[in-house]
Amino acid sequence: MKALKQRSTCPISTSLDVLGDKWTLLILRDMVFAGKSTYGQFLQSAEKMATNVLADRLAVLESQGILTKAVASDKKSKFTYRLTEKGVETVPIIIELILWGTKHGPAVVDPGLLEELQLGKDAAVEKYQRLAREKALA
Amino acid sequence: MKALKQRSTCPISTSLDVLGDKWTLLILRDMVFAGKSTYGQFLQSAEKMATNVLADRLAVLESQGILTKAVASDKKSKFTYRLTEKGVETVPIIIELILWGTKHGPAVVDPGLLEELQLGKDAAVEKYQRLAREKALA
Repeated sequence: MKALKQRSTCPISTSLDVLGDKWTLLILRDMVFAGKSTYGQFLQSAEKMATNVLADRLAVLESQGILTKAVASDKKSKFTYRLTEKGVETVPIIIELILWGTKHGPAVVDPGLLEELQLGKDAAVEKYQRLAREKALA
Repeated sequence: MKALKQRSTCPISTSLDVLGDKWTLLILRDMVFAGKSTYGQFLQSAEKMATNVLADRLAVLESQGILTKAVASDKKSKFTYRLTEKGVETVPIIIELILWGTKHGPAVVDPGLLEELQLGKDAAVEKYQRLAREKALA
């Protein structure tokens, strides 16, 4: 198990101890919004994550109980990553990052997703958590 | 102006380009929830931010229009930092980190804040954004 340093007992700080970097939430984004589940799929994202960074972040996420790792059913040398409930519950954080980035960043947002978010954030959170749970059980 | 690398046009990624590290959102936490506004106050937080990290993050936050820096009214050698509207709008992200950290982390949460959050997240977001705006105008 990869040990993380706990800097304080503040819940914002303990969340950032795990999620506070430029890559971890992109892996979770890929699982929730793009249905990705393998190392090779994560590497293909637009942000071009380095292999060592990806391996490190996946190990942290597994050790923190945010995802589970299992041998793929189709190929014994391949692993499949699935979100746990703790992982599914990062969806509201990711949705808020989408909204802030859409409003303030130089981002280009999928119009369908944006419309969903504008119609109702809670409904969108619920939908993507439901889809992520279904995927985790598949 | 400190240039940031934009890794992709994904809004989650562009948000993390700015906010994705272990310290930036703690500075914003200190401004929103603890009413801090000076370099010396930020250094005193429980997480013991290093001076060079703090200076770097404040420069990024200023260059990204998330806070403004001004000479303090009481002492010309001191600076005061205030949140802009873009900064105030990080409150929903911070609130989601509180909720996730409270549920899943080894965190200890202020009971008053937790009760507020459990009574209604939207109302809590609105309250802390209002307080942060008032402080920014003070």
